[in-house]
Amino acid sequence: MGLPKESDFRLADAPVPELGDGEILVRAMYLSVDPYMRGRISGMKSYAAPTEIGGLMQGGGVARVIETKNPGFSVGDIVDIYMGWQEYAVSNGRGLRKLDPAVAPVSTALGVLGMPGMTAYFGLLDICDPKPGETVVVSGAAGAVGSIVGQIAKIKGCHTAGIAGGDDKITWILDECGYDAAFNYKTTDNYSAKLKELCPNGIDVYFDNVGGPITDAVFGCLNVGARISICGQISQYNNTQVEMGPRLLGALIVYRAKVQGFLVSDYAPRFSQALPEMAGWIRSGQIKYREDIVEGFENLPKAFIGLLQGENIGKRIVKV
Amino acid sequence: MGLPKESDFRLADAPVPELGDGEILVRAMYLSVDPYMRGRISGMKSYAAPTEIGGLMQGGGVARVIETKNPGFSVGDIVDIYMGWQEYAVSNGRGLRKLDPAVAPVSTALGVLGMPGMTAYFGLLDICDPKPGETVVVSGAAGAVGSIVGQIAKIKGCHTAGIAGGDDKITWILDECGYDAAFNYKTTDNYSAKLKELCPNGIDVYFDNVGGPITDAVFGCLNVGARISICGQISQYNNTQVEMGPRLLGALIVYRAKVQGFLVSDYAPRFSQALPEMAGWIRSGQIKYREDIVEGFENLPKAFIGLLQGENIGKRIVKV
Repeated sequence: MGLPKESDFRLADAPVPELGDGEILVRAMYLSVDPYMRGRISGMKSYAAPTEIGGLMQGGGVARVIETKNPGFSVGDIVDIYMGWQEYAVSNGRGLRKLDPAVAPVSTALGVLGMPGMTAYFGLLDICDPKPGETVVVSGAAGAVGSIVGQIAKIKGCHTAGIAGGDDKITWILDECGYDAAFNYKTTDNYSAKLKELCPNGIDVYFDNVGGPITDAVFGCLNVGARISICGQISQYNNTQVEMGPRLLGALIVYRAKVQGFLVSDYAPRFSQALPEMAGWIRSGQIKYREDIVEGFENLPKAFIGLLQGENIGKRIVKV
Repeated sequence: MGLPKESDFRLADAPVPELGDGEILVRAMYLSVDPYMRGRISGMKSYAAPTEIGGLMQGGGVARVIETKNPGFSVGDIVDIYMGWQEYAVSNGRGLRKLDPAVAPVSTALGVLGMPGMTAYFGLLDICDPKPGETVVVSGAAGAVGSIVGQIAKIKGCHTAGIAGGDDKITWILDECGYDAAFNYKTTDNYSAKLKELCPNGIDVYFDNVGGPITDAVFGCLNVGARISICGQISQYNNTQVEMGPRLLGALIVYRAKVQGFLVSDYAPRFSQALPEMAGWIRSGQIKYREDIVEGFENLPKAFIGLLQGENIGKRIVKV
């Protein structure tokens, strides 16, 4: 409960297993730290089984094949693999995606061309269906997901406003990600007044990564027919008990608004259509991304804890 | 603010206007009292202009034509007319629906074959799309809307559980409306445990008329892919300030659930398809309804205040 501490994590050595027929051995190049991991170590009922105390932290990685008894993989292949926080892993190869460094830096498989990018894509387009001229507000707008959401909304012809915690983040999303408007919630007293100023036509779409008082304020500025995508609630993840907040459901009647939670994994069958479109937007310069690289396997816990505190700009990745 | 008092209302006399060409004069037979009217006199921003102090209470009625200068109407015609709380009204006839007493008692135009029935129909079918075998929970289940929702869900092959405040209400929804399960929230301590007992397969659809702690409990029992229709929040309407409650949005991610508010008026273009289907279900005995008739025009305020306190079983109507 509460914000995890580095002492909650333990670095352990274990022998690298012998390969069986059809298996490959990979060595991690990049490992991912993501907000969703907080839920996996909370012990609370959720959509995935929790990690037991003493268990391996789960998570995505990009790794190089260093030994193979599987004819589908050669030594030197680079793969996207859900290997957890470990340097080496053995796999039978099923479900692994081979990465081509010529298409994009392989680390992007953990960010804009991976789970966070797909989260932005489907959470915005599938749930909110933004129309040209509509106003889209994004919380956590400088994160791996939020920074992409605003850019996709812009491609779709929307007016975009981002909320983030830090002037450096605000500068980046305005200058690089092309948000039309943005504010730093840490230095803003009245979120509601600021939203009304930045979104003079009201809010049609809200992509929520954070929850809490920011989301409360957005609910007061909705337009009729608003769509709200609940991607994350990072402001709540370290709470030791459920936080109280103003009851919001009445506003949904007034605005005939829809609120929908989603998990990107439910969209996995459609990733193969979305990834080329996203890669195209990167090539054309319509989507910019930023990686926040932390060096060193041993720094995974620190990188993760800092992520929960909002240290990162763009996708935080640990380079092994 | 707070629960309205009878002294908040004033009975006023005014001359009956002269009819112009194309106009009709009607006299009220039945006038409606509905929970939504509380919002109209709150002075708060909402989906309809508030009634000013000293203004006429707005609302639906069933009335008889007593004078006509419109060739489309004859003296004696009975019409469904949004006339407000008054005994006489003048209309140009546009938008009025003539009622045939041979089809159903004309008072049903204010209930099961009117706004509340259409609210149940579209709020359940259009927003929640219940599938055979799914579990549907309804709050305010003995009201004009909730009592119909459970019966439509039953027609669609669902397991139904209703929540209401009073043993007489519970008896009625179980014995007459065919709910599979029900509980009286006024005599139940642990809503969550009771819901788990009555809905052993979890909750797929929730039709919410009340909000507050009942709705909090339902959010803890949802299934993946749950759909929640926010029709009303009657537990909140008399609050003098926004009530605090546990933040619920995180659960929507876990369950990939959708919450949508709606107004039945948005479905008006489809009423003419839905009303015959509803009338058919009444004729076939698949839908039962109950009217809670209060006698006397002067009792409108008392009938309305009692409605907000949950006195009624079924549709409360004032007979003029």
